[in-house]
Order: sequence, then C-alpha cells, then structure tokens
Amino acid sequence: MKTIDLNCDMGESYGAYRIGMDADVFPHITSANIACGWHAGDPLVMEQTVKMAVEYNVGAGAHPGFPDRIGFGRRYMKCTGEEIRNYLVYQIGALQAFCKVHGTQLRHVKPHGALYLAAVEDEEVARAVAEAIVSVDPKLIFVALAGAKGALMREIGQQTGLQVVYEAFPDRAYTPEGTLAPRSMAGALVTDPAAVTERALKMALDNSVIALDGTEIDLDVQTLCVHGDGPTAVDLVRGIRSRLEAEGVTVAPMKRKGES
Amino acid sequence: MKTIDLNCDMGESYGAYRIGMDADVFPHITSANIACGWHAGDPLVMEQTVKMAVEYNVGAGAHPGFPDRIGFGRRYMKCTGEEIRNYLVYQIGALQAFCKVHGTQLRHVKPHGALYLAAVEDEEVARAVAEAIVSVDPKLIFVALAGAKGALMREIGQQTGLQVVYEAFPDRAYTPEGTLAPRSMAGALVTDPAAVTERALKMALDNSVIALDGTEIDLDVQTLCVHGDGPTAVDLVRGIRSRLEAEGVTVAPMKRKGES
Amino acid sequence: MKTIDLNCDMGESYGAYRIGMDADVFPHITSANIACGWHAGDPLVMEQTVKMAVEYNVGAGAHPGFPDRIGFGRRYMKCTGEEIRNYLVYQIGALQAFCKVHGTQLRHVKPHGALYLAAVEDEEVARAVAEAIVSVDPKLIFVALAGAKGALMREIGQQTGLQVVYEAFPDRAYTPEGTLAPRSMAGALVTDPAAVTERALKMALDNSVIALDGTEIDLDVQTLCVHGDGPTAVDLVRGIRSRLEAEGVTVAPMKRKGES
Amino acid sequence: MKTIDLNCDMGESYGAYRIGMDADVFPHITSANIACGWHAGDPLVMEQTVKMAVEYNVGAGAHPGFPDRIGFGRRYMKCTGEEIRNYLVYQIGALQAFCKVHGTQLRHVKPHGALYLAAVEDEEVARAVAEAIVSVDPKLIFVALAGAKGALMREIGQQTGLQVVYEAFPDRAYTPEGTLAPRSMAGALVTDPAAVTERALKMALDNSVIALDGTEIDLDVQTLCVHGDGPTAVDLVRGIRSRLEAEGVTVAPMKRKGES
Repeated sequence: MKTIDLNCDMGESYGAYRIGMDADVFPHITSANIACGWHAGDPLVMEQTVKMAVEYNVGAGAHPGFPDRIGFGRRYMKCTGEEIRNYLVYQIGALQAFCKVHGTQLRHVKPHGALYLAAVEDEEVARAVAEAIVSVDPKLIFVALAGAKGALMREIGQQTGLQVVYEAFPDRAYTPEGTLAPRSMAGALVTDPAAVTERALKMALDNSVIALDGTEIDLDVQTLCVHGDGPTAVDLVRGIRSRLEAEGVTVAPMKRKGES
Repeated sequence: MKTIDLNCDMGESYGAYRIGMDADVFPHITSANIACGWHAGDPLVMEQTVKMAVEYNVGAGAHPGFPDRIGFGRRYMKCTGEEIRNYLVYQIGALQAFCKVHGTQLRHVKPHGALYLAAVEDEEVARAVAEAIVSVDPKLIFVALAGAKGALMREIGQQTGLQVVYEAFPDRAYTPEGTLAPRSMAGALVTDPAAVTERALKMALDNSVIALDGTEIDLDVQTLCVHGDGPTAVDLVRGIRSRLEAEGVTVAPMKRKGES
Repeated sequence: MKTIDLNCDMGESYGAYRIGMDADVFPHITSANIACGWHAGDPLVMEQTVKMAVEYNVGAGAHPGFPDRIGFGRRYMKCTGEEIRNYLVYQIGALQAFCKVHGTQLRHVKPHGALYLAAVEDEEVARAVAEAIVSVDPKLIFVALAGAKGALMREIGQQTGLQVVYEAFPDRAYTPEGTLAPRSMAGALVTDPAAVTERALKMALDNSVIALDGTEIDLDVQTLCVHGDGPTAVDLVRGIRSRLEAEGVTVAPMKRKGES
Repeated sequence: MKTIDLNCDMGESYGAYRIGMDADVFPHITSANIACGWHAGDPLVMEQTVKMAVEYNVGAGAHPGFPDRIGFGRRYMKCTGEEIRNYLVYQIGALQAFCKVHGTQLRHVKPHGALYLAAVEDEEVARAVAEAIVSVDPKLIFVALAGAKGALMREIGQQTGLQVVYEAFPDRAYTPEGTLAPRSMAGALVTDPAAVTERALKMALDNSVIALDGTEIDLDVQTLCVHGDGPTAVDLVRGIRSRLEAEGVTVAPMKRKGES
C-alpha cells in the first residue's frame, strides 16, 4: 500500500498581517512547514501554529529562510555557507523551543523560497543547510526536491546522514528531464484543480508525472507540497486529500529516522 | 567557604559591528549572558560566543531582550505578557540550539536592559519571563535582582519552580533601602576600580554592601554582574576575580537545579 | 457653508502582506495618512499609495510611527524627544521624496498609533513631533486630536508655528469631558454604520458630538478619521461621504498654510 | 590647475554601535557618502553626520544600500529594478530631509557595497539607480566607477541626464584593462600608506594609474574614495590631502550641475 505525506507552508502571518488560511488547511495536511520569524512568521504566530499542529496531529517542521522579510525570502541573497548554517541553527532552534513548550517534537526542515532554490543549485548552500540540520538534531528529516534537478541537494543530505524525504509539486509542470519548468515558461503552473488533483494522485500511486511534452517520467516522491493561501486553495487541499484516500493511498506524516 | 559567580553580558556584536572585548573577558568570568539576536547579537556571533563559553568552561546563559535593535533593548516597550513570553521562548530556543550544536547546555536566563527593569517593576512581565523560562527547560536558572527592589521578580521566579539566583552590581550604588540608586542620581555609578573591587569582595564575603548613606545593608548575592566593554573593563574584571580568589572566595558558575 | 476633510490611514501593506482596501477607499476620502515604512508600509507600497493619492486628488500626508513593525506601531516605546524628532524627519523625508517623484506635495503629518497617543499625553513627545514637522517644511499641516484631551498636542503644534488641523473619530465614543472613551470601556467603539454616519454629520455640521451620557458637547473639528480595512469599512466611508454631501457639507482636503 | 574630490563613507554607526572615525576624518575630505539607515546608519547618526558635513563644508551625499543590515549591504540581493528604484527614492529622500533641516543641499548619490557592484555589472540595476536619483532631483551628482569596467554604469547615468562623476580607488590595484583587480587576487589591496598616497597623486595629476603589470593606464578620475575606519586610516586621509595640496592639486567638492 502506498503512503504519502501532504506538506504545506504555514505560520506565515506576521504581527498585524495575515497570510494563509492556516486554521482551515490544518485538518487536511500531514506536515506543516512553519516559518521561523525571519522571512515570515513571528513568535506569537509560531506558538499558534505549533499548537494547531499538535491539535491536528500534523508533523511540525521548520521552514527557515533568508533574512529578508520585505522580500518574503523569495529573493536570492549571496550568503556564505557559514552564514546560512548559523542562520538555520538559529531558526530551527527557535521553532524547536515552541515544539518543546507545546509537547511535540520538531520533525522536519524544509528551506523556504530562494533558500530552497539555492540549495538545489549550489552545493555550498545545500551543505550548509544539511549541516545545520544534522548539528541541531540528526534525526530531523530533510525535505528535498524530487526529480533530476534535486539530486545534488538530496545526495548532500544523505551524505550528512540525514533522512531525506523527496518532495514534488502537483501544481507545477515538469520538463521531460524531470525538473520543474521555470515559472516564466508557459504552462509552468497547473491551475485547474482537477488536473492538480490527478497529478497528485499519479505522483502518489505511480511515482511518476506527465511531463510538458506528454511523456511519463519517473519521480520518486514521498511528500507532496500543497498550498493554503486563499479559499480555493483550501478546497483544493481537501480535494487532493479525499481523492488520495478514496484511491487507497494512506496520507500520513513523513517518518523520522527510526520511526516505523 | 564562600562561592560566587561572575556574570557578564557577551555576544553583543552584530554583523560588521563590534561591541565588547569578549575574547579578553571570557578567561575571567564564570557565566556569560549571551545576546540572542533581537536587541544585539546575530547567529554568527552567537556561535562564536557559545564556542568561547565552552572553551573557557564558562556557563552559557541567554540574555533575551525587547525587539529593539536600534535602541539596544534599553528602551521600555509596552508589550503584553503573551508577547514577552513568546519572544523569550523564541530567543532562548535559538541560543539553546547553538549550545546543543557545540556540546554544552544552556544554564541560565537573564533578561536584558529595559526588559530586566520591567521584570523588576511589573508582575505581568516578571511572570511572562519566568513562564517562558520554565516552559523551555525547568532546570534553567533565572537570574534576578538581589535586594529589596528585586523581591517581586525573585518571588515570581520561585513560584514557577525555577532556581533563582540573586544578582548584585558592584559598580552601582545602593540606597539604604537596598535598591539600586537610579542612574540619574549623583554617585549612582561607582567608577573607581579599587572601590568596585572592594564592593565586589564585600558582596561575596559578607553578603552586604555599603549604601549611599554609609550604612551597611544585607544583600543576599550569588552572582556579581561585571562589564566587559573597554580595555579598562577587562582589567577590572581580572582584578575582581584575582582579589576574590586571593581572599579565599571560590569563583564558580551558578548551579542548575540538582547540581551540587 | 461647512467644509470637512475625511482622512484615512493608507499604504499599510508590506512586502507580500496586504492590509486595507486602499484602491476602493481612495475615491471617497480627501486625505491619506501614508505609512512610511517603519511600523507599516514599504517603498513600493509608498509609491503606489502616492500615485493613487495623485490620481484621486487626495491630499498626501505622512503617517510616521515607532520603529516597531512586529507591533504595527501600536505599542508605546519610551523614546527620547531627540529620537522621535529624528525618526520623524527620516520618515517624513522618505515620503516627501515619493511625493516629489510623482508630482505632488506632501501636505500633512499625523503620527500613528502609540506615537499619536504619546503625543497627546506627553509634552516632550508632542514637541518632538511638531519640531520634526516644522523643520522639514513649516507649511506642513499637523493633524492633532480635537477635544479637551488634545489641547496640549494642539497648543504645542501652534507654538511651533504649524497649521494645526483638529481631528475627531466618528466611530469612537466621547466622554462628557470631550475626551475619547478608552477602548476598554463598554460602548467605546461605535459599530453601527448608521450611527457612525450620523455622528460624522453632526461633527461636520454642528462641531459637536453626543457624549456617552447623552449630553451634547462642543468639538471643534476640521477632519474626520475614517477606516478602510474590510469591505464593510469601504461602504461606511462611501456612506459618510455621500451623506455629508447630501446635507450640503463640502468634503475637501485640509488646507496648507496660505492656501485658500 | 587640477581639481579633485576626496570622498569617504560616513555615518555608518547604528544605535549603540560605532563604526568609523567620522569626527576625525571630516576635516580632511570634501564629500561624505552618508549611510541612509538601511545597511548602516540611523536617523540620529544621519543628523549628526549631516551636521558635521555642514560644519566642515563637506558635500553631503547619499550612500543607499540593500535592505541587509546584518550583512552591512555587502551581499548581493536579487532585487528587481522597480524594487531598487523605490528603495533608493526612499533612502535618498530620508537623507535629503536631514540636509534640508540642517541648511544644506544633498549633492550626490553613490550606491553602497553590493549595490554599487551590481550597478557596475547589471544594466537593470544601473538604470534603476540612475532613475531613482534623477526622479528625486535631476541636479544630483551620480558617483560611478572610473575605468573600463564602469563604462556601463556611467553611460546609463549620462543617458538619464545626470551629472556623472568618475571615481577611483587609490588603495585598490587595477588590471592592465583598467578594471579593479578582484579582492581575491594577490596584491589587490594596496596597503602601504606611501604607495596609496602616490597612487592618489598620480590619479589626480595625471589621470592615470600604474596597473598590476607595471604599465601606466589612463583613468579619467574626478573623485578619489578614501577610507575612514581606524586611526591609521585617518593618518592616511590626512596624508593624501596634504600631499595633493602640496603638489598644487585643488581638493574641492564635486560640482552639481550648473555649478562653476
């Protein structure tokens, strides 16, 4: 029987500012990537988000990003490996404390936005991310990109001894080479909810995806990234979850090292 | 035999900005209050500071402050108890991760600047601080103000079950009531190094201090706050340490709950 | 014939975060208090907001606040007069540049949130605010609180030579003494749109308001503060505007010194 | 007779943090590039720095940077042209207000650190910088890199109609192609004060520099960048100034458009 995790970026509100429909999305996902107060989030939001993760039995993960709140962590910053490693130790540690306070355990780390993309492209960044994670807790799961493009990031994670979980994006187009189509390419974003749902199902059941040219390509996937901003998004997440379960897929949190 | 701890604010540098003579002060103190990246400090500085604490066998403590870097955490901000509690969980957690990464254990928490003063004056603030500490790790030491003025802060710490350690300031004048003379008062700051050293010794040996009016008042003290900014300060810290030891005082880190 | 200004806080979005229905509110107001990037707003939002002000012929004003983005400028910070004065020169200057770039002139300054309240209560703060404004441009209008409570703030503004415009809040209850009822008091917020509209009309036509005890009190008013967050708010602003105009009140921007 | 400007980065202190020997350097320079509170500086520092510029008759310029205080604006951030343009309008406007308040006029703009380098390399960035400057005040001087490498930046400045002033670095090595040797190259930094002074003199008198391979190359220069951090630096600046004057070079501020 096939098992898959549904992860979603959560806790991105900040002070008086609200982003996301977190309370509506939590019932339908199994892992939450929680912003750590640098590109988004703040301590009060982090506490609320961790409490909801506990309430809904959702795996709590850290979603660290660049020190760029005004750019929401979406802009590349040329940081050294040492900077990135320490920025992540800081952010992961802060979130870990909220997990401890609310009786749960931090389970995974997924870098956010431009930091994720940098970790995909740049060995020094990927290594800094992996080393930060392993140094804080070697049992933490490292969420990394599935497909050909993510090989470097995944290998570096595995070299450090981390449990690496492969992530795919049902609402993003893939090239025949198994990489995400750049957002600037026509058709890069799959917007039809039914199509996104079918792609999620195919990823979960068959470990594959239909690429832009119509060919089916292999894609080893253990977690699917879904989005929770906007009421439509909530319906989509709910729809993906129920379709997966209707087809016999078990939707369950990623496993930490040693968990069965 | 009398034992005393010497604590000093450390890790206050930030990015390209340097404050303090940390590398020169570490050999002479027993506890470091390490800034957590809000009013001062940053992740690289935190890592360096924790590493020095480990190297010099100095107790690592968190020194959380208000979210006011431009004001160095020295300005009162009217925050709710919930805000302060979560701000401290965040900051303590971040520093705890650096301790974990570098093989040591966070030992104490001392609020910084205006937050310390607010915890002295305001029950809600003191409670928020104590609750944050106990929620992250009930064995953490809470450093609180010695003397009459600090009673509220200490009691609230004790009510939460924390190990409370009493702090005095050898370079500050005390009123006959056992409270710190306000900085605006003439003579509030003791600037003569020899006088500061003698006051430190009297605090450590006799648990007392000579107040502004010349009377000797009781002051139950377990840690002395010293300062490390400026070359003179380093000499003063070194002098206090050697004078204490010459008089038979053991200078040693504060004890966590259960430590002997 | 009676003339009144309708002012609204605008440009409070920040990076990826949206607050307010600015595009919907602009057609109905005559003055915009534009956040200056400290407690809210950012340079891109400031540009967009100034462009809309120009497009709708709305008076552009600066809405400077405390350096407290995480608290949205709503929390008191104990700053010195020198700090506040310089913080305001900075923020007003930044907004002024956007006005210059987009072919308009900065017209007024209204301090935001906790800074406004501090200027009402504290002479040093009021003086720092007024001095900042007059130093940047002595023809800028200073928006200050109408009613007994605002007397200090208004007098200090007038002493510095500024054009002071008196502001009232149709959705806030007033005490018989002519001061705003504290938000914690029952009935402090007037939530019924029809009641708010009638109060706005009475303020504009009669320069008076019905206080909490039912007595009618004088209130010298030249601008009414309306709110633009939420679709209901837009309807309310539109309703107030059309009711005022239907009753023969001219709704027009505040006048700078020397304007007729 | 030859005239040259000496410019120096000033006003980089921040809150409790001090960088630079500004008060000691001001007597010896003719233009100050003043940090605008993003990568460095704060409103109080800006006021102090502008006041010193007025006192010493030094040309006040804006030194805007990326929104990266923790990295001191030295790290590349992938911002859009629209972002950079608005970030600069904001920063220039803020500093302009301090100039206005203290009775002087903002004279030039020189982008800081990684933003300067990006403007050298990237047409979109250079254009955004130039457009921001011209939109705030078309008479502002745009300080751009002398030598082959700076051609793009200078041309774009000239296309927008700005007065472009060419800048060279006497303490940096130049390649035979007339570009700055990368800092990673051996000998990229000229550290001997006498050598720096002679290079400054040659730049000012002959509009040329001896490249790394010993050849003399042309370098059209109107301003020399000197450094003011550290006591040695102050001596060096003083030495350059007196040597230039001893050799008959007039050391004077850059000219704004239309100034003679």
